[in-house]
Amino acid sequence: MSEHPLSPETKERLMAVSVATLATALYKRGLRHQVIQDVHPVSPKGKNMVGPAFTLRYMPAREDRNQLVEFRNPEHPQRLAVEMCPEGHIMVMDSRKSAYAASAGDILITRLMMRGAAGVVTDGGFRDAMNIGQLDMPAYHNRPSSPTNLTTNEAIDINVPIGCGDAPVFPGDIVVGDDDSIIVIPAHLANEVAEEAVEMTAYEDFVLSKVQSGATIIGLYPATKDENLEEFKVWREQNDR
Amino acid sequence: MSEHPLSPETKERLMAVSVATLATALYKRGLRHQVIQDVHPVSPKGKNMVGPAFTLRYMPAREDRNQLVEFRNPEHPQRLAVEMCPEGHIMVMDSRKSAYAASAGDILITRLMMRGAAGVVTDGGFRDAMNIGQLDMPAYHNRPSSPTNLTTNEAIDINVPIGCGDAPVFPGDIVVGDDDSIIVIPAHLANEVAEEAVEMTAYEDFVLSKVQSGATIIGLYPATKDENLEEFKVWREQNDR
Amino acid sequence: MSEHPLSPETKERLMAVSVATLATALYKRGLRHQVIQDVHPVSPKGKNMVGPAFTLRYMPAREDRNQLVEFRNPEHPQRLAVEMCPEGHIMVMDSRKSAYAASAGDILITRLMMRGAAGVVTDGGFRDAMNIGQLDMPAYHNRPSSPTNLTTNEAIDINVPIGCGDAPVFPGDIVVGDDDSIIVIPAHLANEVAEEAVEMTAYEDFVLSKVQSGATIIGLYPATKDENLEEFKVWREQNDR
Amino acid sequence: MSEHPLSPETKERLMAVSVATLATALYKRGLRHQVIQDVHPVSPKGKNMVGPAFTLRYMPAREDRNQLVEFRNPEHPQRLAVEMCPEGHIMVMDSRKSAYAASAGDILITRLMMRGAAGVVTDGGFRDAMNIGQLDMPAYHNRPSSPTNLTTNEAIDINVPIGCGDAPVFPGDIVVGDDDSIIVIPAHLANEVAEEAVEMTAYEDFVLSKVQSGATIIGLYPATKDENLEEFKVWREQNDR
Amino acid sequence: MSEHPLSPETKERLMAVSVATLATALYKRGLRHQVIQDVHPVSPKGKNMVGPAFTLRYMPAREDRNQLVEFRNPEHPQRLAVEMCPEGHIMVMDSRKSAYAASAGDILITRLMMRGAAGVVTDGGFRDAMNIGQLDMPAYHNRPSSPTNLTTNEAIDINVPIGCGDAPVFPGDIVVGDDDSIIVIPAHLANEVAEEAVEMTAYEDFVLSKVQSGATIIGLYPATKDENLEEFKVWREQNDR
Amino acid sequence: MSEHPLSPETKERLMAVSVATLATALYKRGLRHQVIQDVHPVSPKGKNMVGPAFTLRYMPAREDRNQLVEFRNPEHPQRLAVEMCPEGHIMVMDSRKSAYAASAGDILITRLMMRGAAGVVTDGGFRDAMNIGQLDMPAYHNRPSSPTNLTTNEAIDINVPIGCGDAPVFPGDIVVGDDDSIIVIPAHLANEVAEEAVEMTAYEDFVLSKVQSGATIIGLYPATKDENLEEFKVWREQNDR
Repeated sequence: MSEHPLSPETKERLMAVSVATLATALYKRGLRHQVIQDVHPVSPKGKNMVGPAFTLRYMPAREDRNQLVEFRNPEHPQRLAVEMCPEGHIMVMDSRKSAYAASAGDILITRLMMRGAAGVVTDGGFRDAMNIGQLDMPAYHNRPSSPTNLTTNEAIDINVPIGCGDAPVFPGDIVVGDDDSIIVIPAHLANEVAEEAVEMTAYEDFVLSKVQSGATIIGLYPATKDENLEEFKVWREQNDR
Repeated sequence: MSEHPLSPETKERLMAVSVATLATALYKRGLRHQVIQDVHPVSPKGKNMVGPAFTLRYMPAREDRNQLVEFRNPEHPQRLAVEMCPEGHIMVMDSRKSAYAASAGDILITRLMMRGAAGVVTDGGFRDAMNIGQLDMPAYHNRPSSPTNLTTNEAIDINVPIGCGDAPVFPGDIVVGDDDSIIVIPAHLANEVAEEAVEMTAYEDFVLSKVQSGATIIGLYPATKDENLEEFKVWREQNDR
Repeated sequence: MSEHPLSPETKERLMAVSVATLATALYKRGLRHQVIQDVHPVSPKGKNMVGPAFTLRYMPAREDRNQLVEFRNPEHPQRLAVEMCPEGHIMVMDSRKSAYAASAGDILITRLMMRGAAGVVTDGGFRDAMNIGQLDMPAYHNRPSSPTNLTTNEAIDINVPIGCGDAPVFPGDIVVGDDDSIIVIPAHLANEVAEEAVEMTAYEDFVLSKVQSGATIIGLYPATKDENLEEFKVWREQNDR
Repeated sequence: MSEHPLSPETKERLMAVSVATLATALYKRGLRHQVIQDVHPVSPKGKNMVGPAFTLRYMPAREDRNQLVEFRNPEHPQRLAVEMCPEGHIMVMDSRKSAYAASAGDILITRLMMRGAAGVVTDGGFRDAMNIGQLDMPAYHNRPSSPTNLTTNEAIDINVPIGCGDAPVFPGDIVVGDDDSIIVIPAHLANEVAEEAVEMTAYEDFVLSKVQSGATIIGLYPATKDENLEEFKVWREQNDR
Repeated sequence: MSEHPLSPETKERLMAVSVATLATALYKRGLRHQVIQDVHPVSPKGKNMVGPAFTLRYMPAREDRNQLVEFRNPEHPQRLAVEMCPEGHIMVMDSRKSAYAASAGDILITRLMMRGAAGVVTDGGFRDAMNIGQLDMPAYHNRPSSPTNLTTNEAIDINVPIGCGDAPVFPGDIVVGDDDSIIVIPAHLANEVAEEAVEMTAYEDFVLSKVQSGATIIGLYPATKDENLEEFKVWREQNDR
Repeated sequence: MSEHPLSPETKERLMAVSVATLATALYKRGLRHQVIQDVHPVSPKGKNMVGPAFTLRYMPAREDRNQLVEFRNPEHPQRLAVEMCPEGHIMVMDSRKSAYAASAGDILITRLMMRGAAGVVTDGGFRDAMNIGQLDMPAYHNRPSSPTNLTTNEAIDINVPIGCGDAPVFPGDIVVGDDDSIIVIPAHLANEVAEEAVEMTAYEDFVLSKVQSGATIIGLYPATKDENLEEFKVWREQNDR
């Protein structure tokens, strides 16, 4: 188990902030490459996906090791990973940024959902994406991809450090997805980043309401004028933030 | 005419299965590259596109041969192809995987629909895609592309073997598209692949219902435990499959 | 101010034609590369975006010049540009065709809207795209991108000639976007191109109605048969075009 | 045979000018896309390759049609093309801009040389490139590629119009390669372009000698000052150009 | 240790054949993706590199784990791997096909050479490539890359299955490089493939000598005419092959 | 003139160190993206190029502004830049990472050399590269490109901040190239980075000599064992470093 498990409070906070805000919070800490690149919701869910990462690593497929009969092996890493992913976790797949063949299909993703996973992410593509998009569990990929994963990918390692969409992912890192994209928060930073992001979001919401009323962003975003900070204090009280 | 015309029975079967399932059926036969890569529905139709391929080949445009006046030629291959594509067929265009300029626009695609085509596919892009998506005929491309095709593409050959999205397409091959992607079935394999895919789909639907009820995939998908095969037999009878 | 300001008549005409038609009108004039490539509506608006270009140029970010504190500078070019973009103009950003990091987020884009901009375009990506898509101002990008722009982009120049999606954009050029894509019309050509495009659109609508009734495109599109031109004359009168 | 065969005079002229100069001569005629992109000499020969194009078109390989046994067919288009390419011609291959697998190897290219071909070009890659580079016939490709062409390419058409490195190539077009790159001159323009290029080269050589002596390029390149044209006249006489 | 160690006889055979020939031998066995793509000799050595694979896996770098101080850790996987790679082995690095930052530099590669490695391969790039090319040990990469590997890559796993240039590489697989490219032979196939490749090379050399004397390839390559096989028998005797 | 001109001492130091070493020195200062990506010597010179940057910015070409006649304008920015680049400076061109058309040819580059420039860099390609490689001034590009720059590029700005190969370049920054690649040192850091790099190089040379004699890198590179630092002190004295 992770040294830094996801607490219910942190999870709740991360449900309420955007990936963009989290990216800025990590940027302040010198982490610039934690957003998974070019991976999108199969269908937008209108709410966040949050959970610790459980990873699966693919390597290029060698034909003699990747015939359909392989799936009869109860220890096949792809199948095994689906049956091992802990409740509340998010399965993150390193598909080598290739959507030529599928990372998984609707049967496996449904099983993942039934087992209580909080979501699934690949930097490749899902087959049966039209069905996966309708599941009650968020899924993210690059684009639909119908060929069986055996075509180009062999599942080789479960729960090791991986790359996904050029972002580093360690098992237990906290993964947050919204309708735009996904970010990977190092486990030991999750609590402090979640708290800070909630604060940042309060100020951003205040700024947005001001801007919608015609305010300039100069001096307001960021707050270089004290009057804006004072006004923000009032706004927080009025809005219970 | 193709030696292997599409029978109504096969067409009906292919209407009822997914591209993913067909990809696996072809994979068993050693064919791994029949899915057209990175080509998507202009708008998802919620049902399959099925028909034999009628092809159009583009080559890079040379400026002196591709002025607007060319379209006044009643024998211009792009125009001619639209007027020649047989009823029930799917026009598949080799646009050299470039969406820099359009493969066609809404007038030609509407004409294709009026003439009874079953669909249209390009590995480039359509102009007027916003209108083409609303037609009552499925269309697939990479992305919208507004420049006239003359900008980079010259239509040069009608109904020859082509590549489309890195898949080989021979005239008369059976093309099947769903809301995820498109596959090209060699004409002589269409009947047997369609039959097999219907069988596979029955089992996959059974598996999905089991998984939705909480079953593990180990031993079930694929069926390595006999009890699952027996249960499937019962399920088929109960569900008329 | 531009030597060739956008007149209300031209704007109205450009609201009523497609980017595809405009691309053909420019093609006739030897301009083949004015469509911004691989840039899409954040969300389709069902109507055109029209306005003169106001540009912002990004260069690769150097870390020591791109800490978060930079945004405290009231003269930061990105912030300044948002506060300078004239009413009715479209802000066009040269993000070096990279969506690795954001070109801007919802607060700045909302401010742009409140100041009366007619739209915003980047060949990178927006953060908070899920919110920007709901604004009452059209926005176009390549894909959502959550990292702060400081990660890879430094705003360096306001209202200079730029490239956007491989198209040349000069300040004051007339930018037109529809639900497919965006085109850049050189300012001095806007009036004549708008007039011609309205004429072309009338004929295209006539052709489409004919095709929808079963007419062949040969001789009709383009009009090489005189009878079609005569029929068109009647149709225009009947349809007030 | 081409309507516009390559005359010995034109060939001699084309041996003496650079691809860059030819590109400018075609640019003047509105042809901007005749240079084959991203294709390089297997090994630089220090002299030009000149000849009419004889083309070979590849399509994506379907596994059942591309087993090694296919090469036993005496009519296999790749083998046949090598045995058909006329003396003095240049075989130009459309390998779909993919060097994943080879376009040909040293045995076929040696055979081509023995049959008197003037060169060979692919927008893919050659296997045995280390040997091909040592042959006494120029060869151009993107990069070495060792897998047999059957892996991804099926030779399908001989001497049809093709694309090569995004340039249009018609059988009989005049192909010129130097140590930098390759250009495709439409057959009917070869004579006039060759003549003009020889003239341009004379002036460029004059300019270069002037620049090497310290002259500014302003007024000289291009010649906007009459004195430079006069000086050039003298230089030509002195240098027999 | 590998179950299938490289015997001196097999090594000698593999020194004497080309990667292209080996690719065809594997193709016959259904293995089509064993050539490492787009990786080249830092400098051609004019002879083969042969040895079992010893692998190193990189993942995307996270800034807080990849400061220069990390190299002070005697257990840093990159340094450790260099000190562990067995004599006669080839270090193969999965650098995620990115040459943005270096996979290693001349000091580490020199150390590898001194320890008796048979070569080194990365699908990224080497820094100090100008020096590495002069070492007496073959090295292969995509292109020179000067930034320290910490910039984008973290060495994470030693001697696990990896991908390199889209080819699957298992520890102990036999790696062969020539002046064109590199191939990965599954360990259990090395003996039989080496023997077959020697036979194939004999025939290819015979064919080449015939072609150099003017023979056609039809019936000769492959040998569909018996007379060629008989002539080959004589040639082998005469040439001690 | 730059606030931070290049002193002769710093220049001399930078002539004696590698781009790789400089990249590490900048990495320590938090600058990770200063190496120009995928740009190579036209021909390796075996010694460094060092000088302050003088920049030229290209934008996408609009056909009506980029006819050959434009070059007759004595104020054409490309020509002008060549005549303005100060002695000892390096012209760095932002060609938008496209080598489709040339950034410049041998006449302009020769003129640049005659005027005393220290070198030239583009992230596009040079025409006449075969000649430019023979000049006595270093030149770096992506690959040879024969079409005139007017085809896709318009020179628009002289000596403004640019991107080149994804690196930020400000006028006056110190540019250093070796046979591997090129790095851009912010002007205000040049002195300290040069000094540090000389020190680092001394240690690296010591390490290399040790490694060539069979030493392990553990404890030596970097120097975590004191004895290595002491030995280094002796080595410096003995070798006058």
